[in-house]
Amino acid sequence: MKIALIQFAPVFGDLKSNIERLKPLLVKAKNADLLVLPELANSGYNFGSIEEAKQFSETIEDSIFINFLKKYCREFQFCVATGFLEREDRKLFNSALLIDQTGVIGKYRKLHLFMKEKEYFAPGNLGLPIFTIGDVKIGMLICFDWMFPEVWRRLALKDVDLILHPSNLILPYAQSVIPSYSLVNRIFIATANRVGTEEDLRFTGQSVITNPKGELIAQAGTEEEIVILDIDPKLARDKMITPMNDAFKDRRRDIYK
Amino acid sequence: MKIALIQFAPVFGDLKSNIERLKPLLVKAKNADLLVLPELANSGYNFGSIEEAKQFSETIEDSIFINFLKKYCREFQFCVATGFLEREDRKLFNSALLIDQTGVIGKYRKLHLFMKEKEYFAPGNLGLPIFTIGDVKIGMLICFDWMFPEVWRRLALKDVDLILHPSNLILPYAQSVIPSYSLVNRIFIATANRVGTEEDLRFTGQSVITNPKGELIAQAGTEEEIVILDIDPKLARDKMITPMNDAFKDRRRDIYK
Repeated sequence: MKIALIQFAPVFGDLKSNIERLKPLLVKAKNADLLVLPELANSGYNFGSIEEAKQFSETIEDSIFINFLKKYCREFQFCVATGFLEREDRKLFNSALLIDQTGVIGKYRKLHLFMKEKEYFAPGNLGLPIFTIGDVKIGMLICFDWMFPEVWRRLALKDVDLILHPSNLILPYAQSVIPSYSLVNRIFIATANRVGTEEDLRFTGQSVITNPKGELIAQAGTEEEIVILDIDPKLARDKMITPMNDAFKDRRRDIYK
Repeated sequence: MKIALIQFAPVFGDLKSNIERLKPLLVKAKNADLLVLPELANSGYNFGSIEEAKQFSETIEDSIFINFLKKYCREFQFCVATGFLEREDRKLFNSALLIDQTGVIGKYRKLHLFMKEKEYFAPGNLGLPIFTIGDVKIGMLICFDWMFPEVWRRLALKDVDLILHPSNLILPYAQSVIPSYSLVNRIFIATANRVGTEEDLRFTGQSVITNPKGELIAQAGTEEEIVILDIDPKLARDKMITPMNDAFKDRRRDIYK
């Protein structure tokens, strides 16, 4: 499975320009099977008010952004995971969508909201769902979710091979912790971070892909960049650390769940 | 609180020589408040059979090793955490003891056994107990326990400031993951690894102390070495990541426990 991290700077609050900026990047990644875009890739991040966030949001049903991605999925026969400012009824969610040529095939809503996001978004209400592309089991987390080891572990214990992690990171801590989560859970992780600045926020890029050995197998710089890497998701299904130690079966379920 | 990591090579199966080797090391660390010794510091690690392991084991009640450490605790007014090959009735445990001048004030038994340890030791049956030195809350884990994020998290959620981690690591993975556990749990961790070789096993040293920011604040080399560092355990009680984000209160207890 060829994964492409599309590390770019969404155009704040300007969906059309944003799509124009994305087009050549998606074409460059056309040989990949699965593209991962940053958090809130349809809107930008640093809203001044909830009204502004609402104004830049879309519903899944009427999204120009999703239709654009769906069209590219059809044309290039890839799937796209993307952060998405989602409106449903009167609520906003910081969501991640998995899209193929048929449309949205997976939806996750960020469980742990960072700073002012608490004022704009409703907390995720879909738990930790699992999606499949072919026989690859996939989970999604968004940006600040990284701080909570439970969500990585829960997904891994549901046998995901790969966790996609669209992000808008302003600090470099997450990128230093991702290899550890990969190692102890024996899974692949693909963190697609954004770059650029919005007001006083500078996003750190350095998107990463890590493997079940905890190795950093790809890392972007701090500018716009596409990272493409072929991974073998089956490697995540081997939980044996030694001939006598299984990372999951050795868990002491009498002590913790 | 001054912590000393006593990174040394226990003498395999020779308690008396082992104690002689330890004496000058404990004297060198006499200004510390809390000394941390490696896993199985009273016996060495690489037993050829369960009979051999039994032969080198001690009961807590009649331990020459504990009496020796207790005496040094009294003389230098420090506490010692140490790995300990423990016999109780017919069972052997891979234990960690916290010792002060009054004797054993804390006992933990390794929950996750590595490789041949499964043949020699009974799995830990004391859960994840918490101990206090003054107002500092302390948890203990042993070596391979490091692979299981649940135990670090459980201890952190019980409000420990510091986890002591006596080890006999033969690979360097744990040392790379410890800073992540410190960061996401906002606690201090002190991993005291051993050095030297036993048969085909070479132990990796590189003992570490990490702080609640996930910083590696001390690291030993690969030879015998004492690392002494003054830490402020109170820093582990601040779980605020941002003015709006508490690492523990932001946990989604509706999704995971």
